[in-house]
Parts: sequence; C-alpha cells; structure tokens
Amino acid sequence: MEFGTVRKILGNILKIEAALMAVPLTVSLLWREASAMAFTWSIIITAAAGIALGVGRVEIKEIKIREALLIVTLAWILVSVFAALPYVFSGTIPDLTEAFFEAVSGLTTTGATVINDVEILPRGLLFWRSLTSWLGGMGILLLMLTVLPSLGVVGLQIYKAELPGPTADKLVPRLADTVKILYLVYGGMTLLQTILLLFGGLSLYDSLLFAFATVSTGGFAPYNTSLARFSANSYVIIIMSVWMILSGVNFGLYYDLWRGRWRNAVQNSELRFYLALTGISIVVVMWNLWPRVSGSLFESFKHALVQVSSIITTTGYSSADYNQWPDFSRSVLFILMFTGACAGSTTGAIKLIRVIIAGKLIKREVAHLLHSRAMVPITVNGYVVPEETTRSVCAFLFLYFALFAAGTAVLSLEGIGMVGAASAVAAALGNVGPGFGAVGPAHTYSQFSPWATVLLTVLMILGRLELFTMIAIISPKYWKQ
Amino acid sequence: MEFGTVRKILGNILKIEAALMAVPLTVSLLWREASAMAFTWSIIITAAAGIALGVGRVEIKEIKIREALLIVTLAWILVSVFAALPYVFSGTIPDLTEAFFEAVSGLTTTGATVINDVEILPRGLLFWRSLTSWLGGMGILLLMLTVLPSLGVVGLQIYKAELPGPTADKLVPRLADTVKILYLVYGGMTLLQTILLLFGGLSLYDSLLFAFATVSTGGFAPYNTSLARFSANSYVIIIMSVWMILSGVNFGLYYDLWRGRWRNAVQNSELRFYLALTGISIVVVMWNLWPRVSGSLFESFKHALVQVSSIITTTGYSSADYNQWPDFSRSVLFILMFTGACAGSTTGAIKLIRVIIAGKLIKREVAHLLHSRAMVPITVNGYVVPEETTRSVCAFLFLYFALFAAGTAVLSLEGIGMVGAASAVAAALGNVGPGFGAVGPAHTYSQFSPWATVLLTVLMILGRLELFTMIAIISPKYWKQ
Repeated sequence: MEFGTVRKILGNILKIEAALMAVPLTVSLLWREASAMAFTWSIIITAAAGIALGVGRVEIKEIKIREALLIVTLAWILVSVFAALPYVFSGTIPDLTEAFFEAVSGLTTTGATVINDVEILPRGLLFWRSLTSWLGGMGILLLMLTVLPSLGVVGLQIYKAELPGPTADKLVPRLADTVKILYLVYGGMTLLQTILLLFGGLSLYDSLLFAFATVSTGGFAPYNTSLARFSANSYVIIIMSVWMILSGVNFGLYYDLWRGRWRNAVQNSELRFYLALTGISIVVVMWNLWPRVSGSLFESFKHALVQVSSIITTTGYSSADYNQWPDFSRSVLFILMFTGACAGSTTGAIKLIRVIIAGKLIKREVAHLLHSRAMVPITVNGYVVPEETTRSVCAFLFLYFALFAAGTAVLSLEGIGMVGAASAVAAALGNVGPGFGAVGPAHTYSQFSPWATVLLTVLMILGRLELFTMIAIISPKYWKQ
Repeated sequence: MEFGTVRKILGNILKIEAALMAVPLTVSLLWREASAMAFTWSIIITAAAGIALGVGRVEIKEIKIREALLIVTLAWILVSVFAALPYVFSGTIPDLTEAFFEAVSGLTTTGATVINDVEILPRGLLFWRSLTSWLGGMGILLLMLTVLPSLGVVGLQIYKAELPGPTADKLVPRLADTVKILYLVYGGMTLLQTILLLFGGLSLYDSLLFAFATVSTGGFAPYNTSLARFSANSYVIIIMSVWMILSGVNFGLYYDLWRGRWRNAVQNSELRFYLALTGISIVVVMWNLWPRVSGSLFESFKHALVQVSSIITTTGYSSADYNQWPDFSRSVLFILMFTGACAGSTTGAIKLIRVIIAGKLIKREVAHLLHSRAMVPITVNGYVVPEETTRSVCAFLFLYFALFAAGTAVLSLEGIGMVGAASAVAAALGNVGPGFGAVGPAHTYSQFSPWATVLLTVLMILGRLELFTMIAIISPKYWKQ
C-alpha cells in the first residue's frame, strides 16, 4: 500500500475544497452576513489540514485498485468532515453528528436534511449546502470514469465498453478529455437550467441553488416546502421535472450526442427502460391521484410528474406531502426509491441497468429450465455482458437488500414505525433524501438519536460508493497482504 | 406434450383426494354433524371428476420435465378446487373465491384464513382444514424429491447430492424407498407431537389438528387466538415451538440420521445457520420485549420463542398479537418472513440455503475485487456448488423480490396501509399466513376484494411451487414446440 500517495492525494483534495469554500464566502460577504467568519475559519482549517497531509516529499506513484478504494472512501469522508465546519462554526447545526450528516447528505447528493427551518439560514450557508451537492455530483462522475469500472463491481462495464474510457490498472492517464467533456455537459445543464428558472421568475440566487441540486440529483431546496412553493407556476414545475429526468440519463449518452453518435443514445436499452418506467409510473400515479387528491387532471399530472421524476432520479424534491397520498402511489414511489435511474448519471440507488440484467437472468433461467441447453450469454445494447459482470450485479443486489433489511431492523429501535424506518434506510442507501411516514417530506432527519444519525450517514456513503468500495476496505482481506 | 399422461395422473390424484375426504367425513359422522352431507357430496363430485379425467385407455408414458411442470401446477390448483367444496357445501365459506383461498392456503401450508370465527365451525370441517395442510406438506416432500431437483432451479441440488435421490429425466423409478422413509419421519413426528400434546392436557382432536398444522408448517389453529389460548401452559408452548423448529429442518437430514450418518446432519451448514439465526432472533426479540411488553423474562422468552419459530418456519401460529410489539421485534419478524428455514422441509419463503449462497456470492465478489483472480467456486457442506445452481439461486431471488414489489404495489390499491399490503404479499408468497398491520394475527383475510383474494391465492401457489414451476408454464416458450 502506497500510503504516501494516498496521503498526498487526500491533501490535494482538501486544498481544492478549501479553495472552493471561497465561493460561499463571497456570497456571505456580498450579503454582509456574519457567516463569513465561519467560512474564513473553515477555509483556514481545511487548507491547513490539506497542507499537513501533503507535507514531506512524496512521489505520487501509479494508483492501483487497493489505493484507489482507500482514496475514494477516505476522500468522501474527509471532505464531508471539513464541509461540515461552516455548519458548526456558524451555529446553524451545533451538533457535530448532525452537521456531518448534512455534509455527507450534500456530498453524496442525497439531500436529506436535519435543518427544520432552512429559510432562516444565512444565504452563504444555504449556498454552500447546495454547492456541496453539486460538487458531490462532479465527484461521482469522476469516480464513474475512473475507479468504479476498474473495480468491476458496478455493472458499469457496459458503459465502459461504449466509452473510450480507462482500462483497469490505468486510472489516471488519458482520462482528462472524457472528464472535461462530461463536466462541460454537467456545467452546461446547470447553466441552462439556471437561465430557464430565471425566466420562470426565480431570483438568480434561487435559480442557481435549484440548478445545483437538480443536476446533481441532490434535492436540497432553499425552502422548507421544497417545490410546493411553485405549485402554481407550472412552467417552473415542468422545468424542474424535465431537468430531473435529464439528470437521470447516463452522461455517457450525452457524450455520444456530443460526438454525433445519435444512434447509440437512441437505441440504448437502459434509456428506453428508464423513460418507459418513468412514463408508466407517472400515468399510474396520476390516475391514482385523480380525483382522490386533486380534482384537476392537470394538477394530478404535475404532482405525479414531479414526484416520480424526483424519486426515480433519487433527487428528493417534493411538490406536495406525498406521504398523505393513497397507498398505491406511495408504494409505486417506494419501489422507485430502489430502482434509481441510469448508471453513469449522478442518481443513486440500484440503477436500472442492474434491474435490466436481473430481469434477463430471470428470463434466461426460464429458458434454461425448458430447454436444459447450455447457458446463453446475456446481451445489453448488442454487447455481451460478461458472466463476471452478471455475478457482480447479483452480489451488488444481494448486498443492497441485505443492508436494507439489516439497516431497517436496527433503525426500528428508534420507534418511528416500520414504514418510517424502512424508508429512511432506503432513502439513505439510495441517496434519495426524504422517505415516508416519520421521514416523509413534511419532516426532517433531526429527530434521530446520534447513533441512528451515524447509521444513516454510513448508509449514504455506502450507497454512494456503490457498496463494494467501502465494503472491500472494511474486509480483513484488504488489510492482509 | 403427453396430454394423456397428464390427464391420467391428475385423475388419479383426484381419486386419492376423494378417498382422503372419507377421513373428515368419519369425523363428521362421529360427532353427528350436518357437515357430513357436505363431505358426501364433495367425495362424489371429486371422485367423478377423477374418473372423468382418467377415462379412456391411456398408457402412462415416462414423464419429462415439461409434463412434470404442468402436472405439478395443475395438481395443486385442481386439488385445491375440490378441497374447497366442503367449505362451500357446508355453507362455512359461501364465497367461491374465499373458499378456494382457504383450500389453497391449506394445501400450500400457508395457514392464512378468511374465517373470522373458526370456533363455531363443525368439527369435521376444521379437521379437513388442518388435514389439507398436512397433505400439502406431504405433497411438498414428494415434489422436493422428484420434480424440483430435475428443474435445477431451486438450489436443492445440494440436497440432491446428499441423497440417493433421482437424477434428471428419471422422475419415477427408485424413489419409492426414499419417499417412504421421509413419510415415516413426517408421520412419526406428527404422531409424537400428538402424544406429547395429549400429555399437555389437549384433547385428542386438538392434539391431532395442531400436530397436522405444525409438522406441515401450515399454522391453521382450531382456535381464533391461535396459541394464545395456551399462554399459561408453558409445556404446550414449548412443545409447539420445538416442533416448529424441528419441522423447519431439512428432512434429508432426518433421513441421514435414520441411516446412521450423524456427521452429515451435525455438520450441515444450513442447519447450523438455521439454528444460529433462530437463536439470535429469539434472544434479540426477547430483549426487545422485556420489560416493554412483559415484565417477566420467562414470558418474554416464551413469546419470542413461539413467534420466531413460527415465522422463520413460515408456520404462522401466534401466542400474542405481535403486531402490537415494538417496531424492532416486528422488523426482525418481517425479515424472517422472507428467509424461511431449511430447504428440503415443508417451510416456504426463500429458504436459508439460498441466503447462504447469496452471502457467499457477496464474499466472493469482495475477494475477487481485491485480487482480480479467477473466480473461486462456492462450496457448501464441502460440495462445490455448480455455477448453474448459483445462477438459479440469483434468478429465484430476483424473481421473488420482483413479485414481492409488484404484488405489494397492486395490493396497495386495497388501501390497507403499506405495511399491511407488503406483509400480506410476503406472507402469501412465503406461505407464512398472518402478516402485520391489517393482516396481523388479530385479523383475517376476509377483508379483501375478490380480485385481491385471487392475487394472494396465486402468490401462495407461486411461492409454494418455488416460483419457476408456474412461471415456466405461463411463458410463451413453454407452449411453443
């Protein structure tokens, strides 16, 4: 293990974080807020930690999988620790556990909050909160192109096969171009949404914050009632929904479009499944809401559109307290909390490519049963999915369900009802944000005991790092050599 | 497809069913009940149907997998149809859908009931109800030795490897001996429990009925409050619990014991996991109940013992309204509704061997991730599990979860709460019986609309036939040739 390299890289990441904190500091200064002091101290401490980690002459060696796993996990944890400082220093979230929760929630693009009234927060702090989500999204895109395909665990090999991306063991070189293009797409989508929201009558500040939280599928909102504030403004509701849906698409497909490969994008089976599932879910929820919840078909459509897009992309916005909706709509949304949208996007949860592969495994089993012939390989988008990939998909899904079950049992000790506990775990693991029952959109995560807050924080990181990144590190085998 | 053979065999099965109805008829006559007429008519109709199906000269040909799938599925459905007749003719369950539900619930050893007051039922009818459960259990043992291993879908190949059972394509010959021994064990366990319950002060009638429903892990009770009636009688509670646990053991291991192969039984990893999981669950539930639900540690232990044994073996007895217990205990029980006990027993749900294999797949993935070496085969009990088996385990688990999710969404339309809907589907699919919320032990399944009753009935059969038996038949591929 090249600990020197790991240390150096983590130090550099913290230095970048310190530099990025200058953005909310500027916002604080613009509005002459006291929170500026909190950012100043946070920057000093984060930079100092970054410098301390990078101290000494260390030659950065080539990163192998073992180092990559450690760097990624520690990076997410460390960056969150320092991202929590402004919350603590400004007195917004005095509890350390809760401040860490909020920071992790941002950087994992979960969007769950412990803040009961966000509307009284200093603007600089709210800005930082949404920015962490946006930066987390960038981190995930980078991760998806570098470490995750090399891990071979995430079922993204298909994505890799379609991209001129890295091959195993060569994480760093020749990636810069791809990353640059993805970041241009990410930035472009953010910019475009900001402009479109400005047209909808939102302030520049609000537009930016919503764009940060939408493109990253984070879901933090600068208002306590999330999108309900804009219920009357159909234009804004539709822009938000469309942007959520766009953010759930595999960013590799935008890359394809960029390169003029329309066919790849249009014929992508995950994209088709994603759009079909989203469409069908919107229709059935709308049908279930109308006329029970809203007498107007268009209102029902808007609610269904926002909520389905929000949950399937694991964003977590709400345009109403969907926890009050009929059971059927709630069940559909609960299921979408597990599926997530496309791999290669910033969405969390299982992701649809894995659902597709699981479905094909079932189909193959029936065929095998009837014919007893040799196993036919599974194909997606015309590519043969290696058995190795199907195995990792299976392992991922089992681990996901096991963590969900175990997490729910443990969180039940909080006595918030089975639906509350189960949906809190599903929302944390899937990086969704709000859940049902006691963690529905009308509530926050401030109600939990410290240990439960920590549990949910760990689940957010686990889910965001596609489970195995972190599980590998805590396995005894990792530390034996 | 040898339709003649299929028809003939189904006819024979119905003739056997008609003959078996003579037992509850005798009970009715002994107590001079009017229900004797219902049984007489049922016997006549069932026998007539059996004779009609077997009419004409048909030479019974060798049964291949395709025929076996059809016979098994149709047998369970047909036998249930005729088993429902006594309920209808006696006026106990006038609704045809509900009568069919009750019959399927018995023959799949689920134990869910639509009867709100069983204590006013004629004794002959209650006897028939419990007997269907016991006969269902015999059917499952036969199935497990014959059709299921040949299907290669159920992860029972391990069981097969340890048993001098059949090999694929040769379903009938040389099985008689094994089946005979398993039936002797099954019958012996029933007899022994009956005697032990007699010692506990139960009447012969009650003892027999409870033994029928325990050994088959069905869970029908001749009392509305299930085992709560015996709360004060610790002896009876412990006998019931121990027998439930014994009934969750792979019957192949009893066969091993019979043959003097102690080692096989003691070192069986599924058995060890089963006992460990049961033990740990009892301890944590007891700890959660004491002193919240009961101030007495021994009472808490008894409640935990009964309920954990009952749910993990998918029996479904209750000694208290566990739906009123703290969330943690309920969550633990909810998870056990999915795991089930050992393969090769009469328990339903997923079964622990599949859980073990799923766990080993996760472990292997972590190892693979860290070493990137070739895949190491998975071993259970010292035997290598063929990749084909792990694949079917994966497909089974995905289909199980998919059916659970889809079933829950659809059943949510009944508006009985998410916990009610989810647990009703889990209880039907896993052949457990009662669930939580609206289908908790204090309620019955009589509250559902006809379509929901049918849905739950289908799920019971699907679960009992290890999903793929029935799924294969409804796939278009099955009917093409």
